[in-house]
Amino acid sequence: MYERIEMTGLIGVDWGTSNLRVMRLGADGAVLDRRIDPRGVGRLASGAFLGVLEEVAGDWLDLAPVLIAGMAGSRQGWIETPYAFCPADVATLAARLARPDAARDIYIVPGVALTPQGLGDVMRGEETQALGLFGPDETGLMIAPGTHSKWVRVENGAIAGFRTYLTGELFAAVRHATLIGRDMGAPGGDDAAFDDGVRLALSDPAVTAHLFTVRVRQLAGSLRPEGAADFLSGLLIGAELAAETTHRDKPVQVVSEAGLGQRYARALALAGFKDIRSTSGEVAVAHGLHRIWKAIP
Amino acid sequence: MYERIEMTGLIGVDWGTSNLRVMRLGADGAVLDRRIDPRGVGRLASGAFLGVLEEVAGDWLDLAPVLIAGMAGSRQGWIETPYAFCPADVATLAARLARPDAARDIYIVPGVALTPQGLGDVMRGEETQALGLFGPDETGLMIAPGTHSKWVRVENGAIAGFRTYLTGELFAAVRHATLIGRDMGAPGGDDAAFDDGVRLALSDPAVTAHLFTVRVRQLAGSLRPEGAADFLSGLLIGAELAAETTHRDKPVQVVSEAGLGQRYARALALAGFKDIRSTSGEVAVAHGLHRIWKAIP
Repeated sequence: MYERIEMTGLIGVDWGTSNLRVMRLGADGAVLDRRIDPRGVGRLASGAFLGVLEEVAGDWLDLAPVLIAGMAGSRQGWIETPYAFCPADVATLAARLARPDAARDIYIVPGVALTPQGLGDVMRGEETQALGLFGPDETGLMIAPGTHSKWVRVENGAIAGFRTYLTGELFAAVRHATLIGRDMGAPGGDDAAFDDGVRLALSDPAVTAHLFTVRVRQLAGSLRPEGAADFLSGLLIGAELAAETTHRDKPVQVVSEAGLGQRYARALALAGFKDIRSTSGEVAVAHGLHRIWKAIP
Repeated sequence: MYERIEMTGLIGVDWGTSNLRVMRLGADGAVLDRRIDPRGVGRLASGAFLGVLEEVAGDWLDLAPVLIAGMAGSRQGWIETPYAFCPADVATLAARLARPDAARDIYIVPGVALTPQGLGDVMRGEETQALGLFGPDETGLMIAPGTHSKWVRVENGAIAGFRTYLTGELFAAVRHATLIGRDMGAPGGDDAAFDDGVRLALSDPAVTAHLFTVRVRQLAGSLRPEGAADFLSGLLIGAELAAETTHRDKPVQVVSEAGLGQRYARALALAGFKDIRSTSGEVAVAHGLHRIWKAIP
């Protein structure tokens, strides 16, 4: 009996607002091991980061260099890492790594802003995932659904553009702070209502008018109260799709946990997208960190 | 010294969710006197309506017939008055008045639904205002801004279509229940930020993406925190306009109190509407009730 020993090539870190994920990556970027901790950036003061990292994965830190993606590079993070701008490929990001501690072999990947003037839109973390999912010559879309749903467009291995939709946060706000959300249950039980919402949003971009129909349809008996949350979810996801249908011939990768990812796949199919795949966020970020590291000149 | 005595032709009532307005109307539909009471439909059980009306204007009820518009005809009101459907003119509504109390000369104007199947969209009260603002051969748009903002399209004296936008309620929900609303003040102080929001919404219908830029613009320093509520207000009002610009050559009447009405007038001008007027809701509903009453066969 013996264990297969794999060399650690890189310690990859995904440090988001609500979670810390530290991964031991093999020489090919595969995830050999991981540790997850709830101390996300939202809960830490800037001086606390190194200590937390040592606590979670101190025994790994000397095995290989550490490369961090995510909100750790934000103003509220470990050290503010200025945004790169579109178009941005792995070389662009590798040339702009920040070093939060001069004594350690630790680096932070910059986030990406759409434009230098006014920033336009911004992301920290999703750029690394997108470049992990689409290689040097590849073209496609990555969707990272959630509170702030990101659509990242990669062309020939470079991030050409991206857009953030307030989908998840708006869903919660409508449910909890409006009359149409009153008595609304959880989504997930009524696929037909979800599809109706997606189709309505695709047929007409006036989403603030469609929101009122959540109420009208219940009044008219054409929407069961149990399906209202699904219809609302379909409307808001459909609003994203309505703005992105020009890309429907490109391959699309949905980075998401099971339930929400399936909803997006369903909505994408309704909108005429043909090549729909899904990947875990961990695989995406691990590949991206590996590729950015390899691109250091 | 003597008073001019005017004959009362009709007792007009606007009974909305949060207010009751009883008006003594002259033979020409002018408002001779009015009484306002906070006992809106939202606060009353169905058996309480006659008593409240007698309390507020018992001395007027024998002067002339009583015609009521608004939520008093809803399922939660005095007596449910089935919807009329588009197209609907004053004769359509006059032929469908409901009588809540067989012993009294009191009638309720039906609300209007867009379509018999599934209703599509519904209103109770705004139909009367719109038909008060545009006469038998007139064509135009009425906007009744607010929690649920209504755009009513009148063609040759008949309501041809209408649409409800969840603008006011969504504004409040975003302000109070999302991260981008955190620390947001009240709107009204920054016209330039408001204009920016309107222009962005007009340039591109993806309002759920624009909402995220409220945050990005503050991060980038291109939007002052004091202007954030104005920018948000511009985005949501602009989203209405973006869906209605095909009507920009028609005259438009904004029914609203001063502040909000001025914002709509400003946004309408930015969207290329040319003939923009404003009227008080009271004048609109009084004229509408008068015209509907005259249309009784």
